Amino acid sequence: MMMRRGGAKLASSLIAVAKPRLFTTATTASRLLKPTIAAAEVASVSGLTGSNWIWTRAPAIGGVRFASSVTLDVKTPTPETNPKKTENESTGGDANKGEKGINSYWGVEPNKITKEDGTEWKWNCFRPWETYEADLKIDLKKHHVPTTFLDKLAYWTVKSLRLPTDLFFQRRYGCRAMMLETVAAVPGMVGGMLLHCKSLRRFEQSGGWIKALLEEAENERMHLMTFMEVAKPKWYERALVITVQGVFFNAYFLGYVISPKFAHRMVGYLEEEAIHSYTEFLKELDKGNIENVPAPAIAIDYWRLPADATLRDVVTVIRADEAHHRDVNHFASDIHYQGRELKEAPAPIGYH
Amino acid sequence: MMMRRGGAKLASSLIAVAKPRLFTTATTASRLLKPTIAAAEVASVSGLTGSNWIWTRAPAIGGVRFASSVTLDVKTPTPETNPKKTENESTGGDANKGEKGINSYWGVEPNKITKEDGTEWKWNCFRPWETYEADLKIDLKKHHVPTTFLDKLAYWTVKSLRLPTDLFFQRRYGCRAMMLETVAAVPGMVGGMLLHCKSLRRFEQSGGWIKALLEEAENERMHLMTFMEVAKPKWYERALVITVQGVFFNAYFLGYVISPKFAHRMVGYLEEEAIHSYTEFLKELDKGNIENVPAPAIAIDYWRLPADATLRDVVTVIRADEAHHRDVNHFASDIHYQGRELKEAPAPIGYH
Repeated sequence: MMMRRGGAKLASSLIAVAKPRLFTTATTASRLLKPTIAAAEVASVSGLTGSNWIWTRAPAIGGVRFASSVTLDVKTPTPETNPKKTENESTGGDANKGEKGINSYWGVEPNKITKEDGTEWKWNCFRPWETYEADLKIDLKKHHVPTTFLDKLAYWTVKSLRLPTDLFFQRRYGCRAMMLETVAAVPGMVGGMLLHCKSLRRFEQSGGWIKALLEEAENERMHLMTFMEVAKPKWYERALVITVQGVFFNAYFLGYVISPKFAHRMVGYLEEEAIHSYTEFLKELDKGNIENVPAPAIAIDYWRLPADATLRDVVTVIRADEAHHRDVNHFASDIHYQGRELKEAPAPIGYH
Repeated sequence: MMMRRGGAKLASSLIAVAKPRLFTTATTASRLLKPTIAAAEVASVSGLTGSNWIWTRAPAIGGVRFASSVTLDVKTPTPETNPKKTENESTGGDANKGEKGINSYWGVEPNKITKEDGTEWKWNCFRPWETYEADLKIDLKKHHVPTTFLDKLAYWTVKSLRLPTDLFFQRRYGCRAMMLETVAAVPGMVGGMLLHCKSLRRFEQSGGWIKALLEEAENERMHLMTFMEVAKPKWYERALVITVQGVFFNAYFLGYVISPKFAHRMVGYLEEEAIHSYTEFLKELDKGNIENVPAPAIAIDYWRLPADATLRDVVTVIRADEAHHRDVNHFASDIHYQGRELKEAPAPIGYH
């Protein structure tokens, strides 16, 4: 929503500041045509419990050219001759003659998507087909009993980090959730990136694990985007988050390079603690110590919650997400413990 | 395919090496039950040109428990008493009584997906709904004429890197493509990761750009996975790839932190060069200097190519992908040039 308004504003300012010589006669004519969206295709997914999503979308190929093409109707640029062309020369090959030289590229607007009720899909960071209903039946009490030295090191590292955290946040679980999600979204990204680089330099398949870990990171980031709507960070909390990110990112990066077994185990334990914290959060909500506000719109769309959902519902589904991350990370660590690589076991992509 | 056999093998060895005491009596009984897949749901996407994909999948929630549950039938573990439980204690909260303590977590197998003809989907790193038909109508000749100092720096950096590259590869375009895709898959991942971290520490929306850049990285990696099937790297080429990754990753990381405007512009020019190289590749194929082998299966599924597609078809669609990446990166750089942040313009997610 804000992004689209921002996009239109950007288009206007792009055109306003762009000098006429930036656009060639040839391209101007084509740009005056309104972008057409090829016959909308209806994709429907049946059978999923909860709301049935139907959405219309322009075809995945081509997309829609940026609104700058449309705004050109408002301000007619002076036709200009073609600016200087640059030929691409390659060793031993023909120069690319007749290459169009332009100074500014059109933006590419994402496909328009509308919901079943005709309203436009307003989120840029996730699409309707990426939404889901959380699996609330997942076992929240599962715990990995640490036996090996590395497991115990992971477990007690997490436990010891809990002390200053509890001291700092006390019972401010909203603030706690918001700030700790900035930390929780790091491991998946670091792990995914390292696996990505490994897949490239070793010329190996990934088994889907890059995607699984990046999904986890994005899911945690969505938790943050949600909690941002209910809790606002103060300046010193922002400063703390920046500091912690700098330390944790590098520490986890190093940890993952040295021992992915340990890294995944630690994240598994972190998720176990997160489950516990969210359970406490729910207790505070039930006692009335924290106001049970309506659920933010982003949460309702992302987790397919009913329109009258509340913060309590949001915390419940987020807690279920953490349980799934716990499973994935303990599983990943187990695979390493067996002396295997992650790619040898198909990754739990889309496991929510 | 290999992943699933690998998964079953892993399961067998997990059970073979796991000592009986790792499984409690309670959990053993439940594990002897074969995992059930909830009623398969058929998702169909109509209207897409090319092959109509219909796939059946287990519901996105829950997933299917690992095959280890099944293999337990083969080797009956000795019933053991429950290993020591660990209670989670939190400051000021109740201890979690009755928590199940187990030493080994079940794996989580991804949902089973079958194609229209009933055969199982064999790829773990992409799903049917992530496949697409490349947009071959895209303008391959578009070029960003460098005007500012940074643009010229980016342009001439790329041009100068072309010299040793051409010297090394000569007309071995298959080998060239395979090795350079290991480089091409880095920028998207670095950019996506940095935007991810920025979104977290600033408590900001991303506008979809994290996803757009990670998509680009994954797409380039798929190019590599494809070319790996037609060209095999020699030992010194592998060594070179590892060295180049170490240098380029860090250099691009630094470049993106200092000037994302420059970084995106450079990638835009790299993609322009890639388009040119792939055009030369096609010429060599047409002349018969490079054998036009059948397209690898992974390429046929990923780009929805006809079953009798050849290497030429693969290079054509990959070249179209590079053109799209060119647009996205030049667009991203333009946004920065306007003094804006990427999140202010909706990202071209799914732009193929």
